[in-house]
Amino acid sequence: MCQTLFEAKAAKKLTFADIGKKINKDEVWVAAVFYGQAKPDESDLKELSIVLDIRENYLINDFGTKTYFPDRGGLFQMPPTDPVIYRFYEILQVYGYPLKAVIHEKFGDGIMSAIDFTAKVDKIKKEDHEKVKITFEGKFLPYRKW
Amino acid sequence: MCQTLFEAKAAKKLTFADIGKKINKDEVWVAAVFYGQAKPDESDLKELSIVLDIRENYLINDFGTKTYFPDRGGLFQMPPTDPVIYRFYEILQVYGYPLKAVIHEKFGDGIMSAIDFTAKVDKIKKEDHEKVKITFEGKFLPYRKW
Amino acid sequence: MCQTLFEAKAAKKLTFADIGKKINKDEVWVAAVFYGQAKPDESDLKELSIVLDIRENYLINDFGTKTYFPDRGGLFQMPPTDPVIYRFYEILQVYGYPLKAVIHEKFGDGIMSAIDFTAKVDKIKKEDHEKVKITFEGKFLPYRKW
Amino acid sequence: MCQTLFEAKAAKKLTFADIGKKINKDEVWVAAVFYGQAKPDESDLKELSIVLDIRENYLINDFGTKTYFPDRGGLFQMPPTDPVIYRFYEILQVYGYPLKAVIHEKFGDGIMSAIDFTAKVDKIKKEDHEKVKITFEGKFLPYRKW
Amino acid sequence: MCQTLFEAKAAKKLTFADIGKKINKDEVWVAAVFYGQAKPDESDLKELSIVLDIRENYLINDFGTKTYFPDRGGLFQMPPTDPVIYRFYEILQVYGYPLKAVIHEKFGDGIMSAIDFTAKVDKIKKEDHEKVKITFEGKFLPYRKW
Amino acid sequence: MCQTLFEAKAAKKLTFADIGKKINKDEVWVAAVFYGQAKPDESDLKELSIVLDIRENYLINDFGTKTYFPDRGGLFQMPPTDPVIYRFYEILQVYGYPLKAVIHEKFGDGIMSAIDFTAKVDKIKKEDHEKVKITFEGKFLPYRKW
Amino acid sequence: MCQTLFEAKAAKKLTFADIGKKINKDEVWVAAVFYGQAKPDESDLKELSIVLDIRENYLINDFGTKTYFPDRGGLFQMPPTDPVIYRFYEILQVYGYPLKAVIHEKFGDGIMSAIDFTAKVDKIKKEDHEKVKITFEGKFLPYRKW
Amino acid sequence: MCQTLFEAKAAKKLTFADIGKKINKDEVWVAAVFYGQAKPDESDLKELSIVLDIRENYLINDFGTKTYFPDRGGLFQMPPTDPVIYRFYEILQVYGYPLKAVIHEKFGDGIMSAIDFTAKVDKIKKEDHEKVKITFEGKFLPYRKW
Amino acid sequence: MCQTLFEAKAAKKLTFADIGKKINKDEVWVAAVFYGQAKPDESDLKELSIVLDIRENYLINDFGTKTYFPDRGGLFQMPPTDPVIYRFYEILQVYGYPLKAVIHEKFGDGIMSAIDFTAKVDKIKKEDHEKVKITFEGKFLPYRKW
Amino acid sequence: MCQTLFEAKAAKKLTFADIGKKINKDEVWVAAVFYGQAKPDESDLKELSIVLDIRENYLINDFGTKTYFPDRGGLFQMPPTDPVIYRFYEILQVYGYPLKAVIHEKFGDGIMSAIDFTAKVDKIKKEDHEKVKITFEGKFLPYRKW
Repeated sequence: MCQTLFEAKAAKKLTFADIGKKINKDEVWVAAVFYGQAKPDESDLKELSIVLDIRENYLINDFGTKTYFPDRGGLFQMPPTDPVIYRFYEILQVYGYPLKAVIHEKFGDGIMSAIDFTAKVDKIKKEDHEKVKITFEGKFLPYRKW
Repeated sequence: MCQTLFEAKAAKKLTFADIGKKINKDEVWVAAVFYGQAKPDESDLKELSIVLDIRENYLINDFGTKTYFPDRGGLFQMPPTDPVIYRFYEILQVYGYPLKAVIHEKFGDGIMSAIDFTAKVDKIKKEDHEKVKITFEGKFLPYRKW
Repeated sequence: MCQTLFEAKAAKKLTFADIGKKINKDEVWVAAVFYGQAKPDESDLKELSIVLDIRENYLINDFGTKTYFPDRGGLFQMPPTDPVIYRFYEILQVYGYPLKAVIHEKFGDGIMSAIDFTAKVDKIKKEDHEKVKITFEGKFLPYRKW
Repeated sequence: MCQTLFEAKAAKKLTFADIGKKINKDEVWVAAVFYGQAKPDESDLKELSIVLDIRENYLINDFGTKTYFPDRGGLFQMPPTDPVIYRFYEILQVYGYPLKAVIHEKFGDGIMSAIDFTAKVDKIKKEDHEKVKITFEGKFLPYRKW
Repeated sequence: MCQTLFEAKAAKKLTFADIGKKINKDEVWVAAVFYGQAKPDESDLKELSIVLDIRENYLINDFGTKTYFPDRGGLFQMPPTDPVIYRFYEILQVYGYPLKAVIHEKFGDGIMSAIDFTAKVDKIKKEDHEKVKITFEGKFLPYRKW
Repeated sequence: MCQTLFEAKAAKKLTFADIGKKINKDEVWVAAVFYGQAKPDESDLKELSIVLDIRENYLINDFGTKTYFPDRGGLFQMPPTDPVIYRFYEILQVYGYPLKAVIHEKFGDGIMSAIDFTAKVDKIKKEDHEKVKITFEGKFLPYRKW
Repeated sequence: MCQTLFEAKAAKKLTFADIGKKINKDEVWVAAVFYGQAKPDESDLKELSIVLDIRENYLINDFGTKTYFPDRGGLFQMPPTDPVIYRFYEILQVYGYPLKAVIHEKFGDGIMSAIDFTAKVDKIKKEDHEKVKITFEGKFLPYRKW
Repeated sequence: MCQTLFEAKAAKKLTFADIGKKINKDEVWVAAVFYGQAKPDESDLKELSIVLDIRENYLINDFGTKTYFPDRGGLFQMPPTDPVIYRFYEILQVYGYPLKAVIHEKFGDGIMSAIDFTAKVDKIKKEDHEKVKITFEGKFLPYRKW
Repeated sequence: MCQTLFEAKAAKKLTFADIGKKINKDEVWVAAVFYGQAKPDESDLKELSIVLDIRENYLINDFGTKTYFPDRGGLFQMPPTDPVIYRFYEILQVYGYPLKAVIHEKFGDGIMSAIDFTAKVDKIKKEDHEKVKITFEGKFLPYRKW
Repeated sequence: MCQTLFEAKAAKKLTFADIGKKINKDEVWVAAVFYGQAKPDESDLKELSIVLDIRENYLINDFGTKTYFPDRGGLFQMPPTDPVIYRFYEILQVYGYPLKAVIHEKFGDGIMSAIDFTAKVDKIKKEDHEKVKITFEGKFLPYRKW
């Protein structure tokens, strides 16, 4: 099924940003749908079917049913071999404890949710180079005591 | 040595943010120094020695020499078991390919540097909860052909 | 530090249930504190210091500071070798997908939180044997779209 | 074969709970049959064949024979990558020893069976959110000495 | 603690069989106690203290308390490197499925318990060699349906 | 090829015990042949061809040639996920060293062969349950010095 | 797709060096394209289509689109089993720390880029043998402080 | 022992290049000696003892005996976590097959020796940055047929 | 392709020894060719084509080209599960350090080449049993200093 | 204990070959004793005590008791990182199946014992280099049918 989405996107020469603008979603979330990592609802699928020119029913039967739920993760073996993805892994190895410590000092005993969560990619232009800016926002969830 | 830093910090009841403000560095980078993941230079160490009340020479001999270089990574086994750190790992598993795809579409064939790189943690206050905001910025490095 | 807690408990011949009753917490959460998997606050520590006859300051300096946070997980290698703990692992292997499917059908696209979460152990007496009853309750967190 | 079951279920738009009610079994156990993790007997299969409108013989030849036995486990790699299933894994990592300790204090030297065992999922409605409640019950098996 | 048991045994030049005969237990179970893999009760410990000439209280404080429970498994990494132990591992690799199939055909859907279980080692003398005979007996536990 | 054997057995509704009785071999060894873990010779194959009603030549060409040798092991990943097989793995983890110690004390420095070896499964009927009895016999091989 | 490139190369009996000379690129980079590890741009593909006699459009649709990006790494499991590739792995194991130390002493706190990077293979003829000379050149990237 | 070497080097504020120049060896090989990855002979040790001001006998007893041989490798877990060393690992993942292919096309069926081998690090100054140049030279060893 | 070789060998009922004698090579090397672990040259292939009655061109196109090189290793996962192959692995585990120590004492700092290398299998007949004799010969390669 | 053996050997400047000659054993077996991989009997220990000038009782108490048995294997992680030992591992990866095939064709269905087994190292002098010759001999053990 994902295959169908990617082919339609390639045929139409659309980027994820193009699609996102049209269906009013962020490009990262749109890409997550394409990679089978996010669940669109029926209205998202209707908009996608128009943008990508795929029969609406076809999309809804595959993605929109009450019993379809993405099997998240599992796209690649850890540690990642691709250098783009590996750099995130390296950031985790190097800055994992510093980030944990700062989160704790700022928020207390809890975590940043990866479910009630958003991720964005921005381009920052500098004089002679560009910077990739990644922004993660997740609800802080404090540990419950009982 | 890191032990000494942590103990001085605990004795003075300082957060990484407190220290960062005093030595004019971001709290995440300061925490990275404490965890042995970043290399401060001599002037950083002088400021640290004042803030933490540790003999300057002591710090410089351990951290400031021309032949000391941090052995980065290796603080924990992957996948991480601590839930705070694991959530970053999960984000990588779920959103790794979507992020790679969007970076490529925005920048071309290359990577976000994890070396010419900064990481920040911010707190966003919402009405009935708080959000953790993580911002990564890294130079875009295009693949060389030869 | 945990060592101190366990020794005091052994000396006083208290079970986790005994301690839990006295400090008004569930026995599983109390055990989690002893194993360094949960963070008690100052009032918990004051009560613990009385029950276990440990100097209050001693406990608070180790567990009650603003910069102490448990490093959760990591007590054993996975898969677990101990048969008691392994059975939970096996339940996960065998019933993991069935549980995921039923959670999704009942709640939609999201997860059961392991943070806003409680765990209990009860004994059910049958005529010629006993049953272990484990109850997990966790907030349902729906996936955010963005 | 499982494929056939899932397709029939999708065509009939039945949840595991719907099926369970009709064949007088719990929804988690029904899901376990669909995922090939539990062995139904002939009378279960007769009922399933009616509910799902699949030829009885077909089901019985595949599932009901004296020599078919499920190969349990093995549906996914550990640690699980899917966040729903991972949370159970994390609970095990964090609360494994506390649970073992409390089981031992309550029952003595032995284990909770994962064979003479049941698992249930309930929904608890709170004012502004829902809670997932998982209940495991397993026979306590004391270690034999010899 | 185990160290103490082994040293007492070495000093007295006793085999596990010798000790087993004196305390009326099988030698394999006795060895399991020495390796920290089985929990003796108070009367076992009293007998052991006599046989090994160790102060009774000493043994009971370590092994006989209501809150001591062995952490089973974990004595070595899998796959085992020692050839004696590896052969069992190889038997499992080669004959695992045949054994599973025969158990199922003889008993139905269930397992041989490793908890309500005994293991014995016997020597069979042949004309020009000896045979090792290992006998495992475990209760058959049928899978529960619910 | 194994596929052919299993299908013929299913069609004839024979258990491994049935087949074993007819060709004068133990059921576990017969199952090992079916799973490709043992090498039958030509006379075994002739008998099997009669019992299972498979053309003799067909069996002999696949199994009986001078250059066919089973590739033993490799049927599943370790640790095993199936609970029936896992219990053997757990027995090894828990009782591995005790068994090694007792074998050494009884036989000296050497191993139980897994090659000059037999395995049996018996059912022991008790009043209200059944017991699985597994018997392994292997030649004792002493270490050579040179 | 890579399959097509390799077959055309085999049919024309060209080495990577031959192709590199014709399209004005180094042979290692050309091989990287063939193995799907480097991204050629449109003008590279035009030249390749001539050298290999493959339809230009065909190559450009697969490799030259704005949304195709190689998934680098992942061609083999680590550690490598092939002896040619393993030797590089061994060099890393043995000389990894010495190389890190010397790079740090010569350049300071940072890394050799694997992105802004080139690799070459040369043959050095000695009297009675040949030497393989590998040259890696990568931009030095100093760690940023923030 | 290595500890002694590093401390003497630190006390004298020497780089590996400084030491190499004095004992007429390459700095990478010198670093390999310090990390216990290369075996110096007696005359190397005599020179080292002068440069580092360590008693000659002390060095020779540890490193120069006929029965001391380095246990190479094993300094870190693979994949490496340190970013400097990881980049070499990544180069291997990405360019491993291209390098193998080019070596084969240039030399035939064989390998580059990692034993009859040298490694060098050079700095190349560019206008606004520096480049790290790594040169490996190893004897080509053709596969023997027999 | 290997498939073709094995089938021709089976059809002609030849052992590797038979083939080796005819093409004047050792049986182990011949087997290595069949398993894709050694590279025959054109004259070897011509002889093989006669012995096995396979069209010469067919063999040469697959194995004899200037750009075909075996991808050695990778035939099985380590540790090996097959008992025949595992015994070599066990020998390595048990006698690895003793062999390393003796090689060093006899030859100095270096290795036995696995490239300029031969392996043989012989049968030694004893009165009541047979012995397998394996002989490895490899060039000694001393470590280079630089 | 092994430590004592190695120190005595170093002090006396003996090679394993020297010791072997004096106690009438092969040098590889002697090295295996030193590395804790083989069990000497009392008469071996008496001879060793003379050669190495260690008190006889001391050796016999540690190695010669009826309850001491070596824990074989486990000296290093697999795959081995040391190049000398790795080459044996590589030989296994590359020639494992060819050796298995030839052993089977020569001997039938069975294995070469690693218990009733000897290993030797010889030096073969060639005109301009030396060869390492390793000879393994192990009893052939045919698989039993039952």
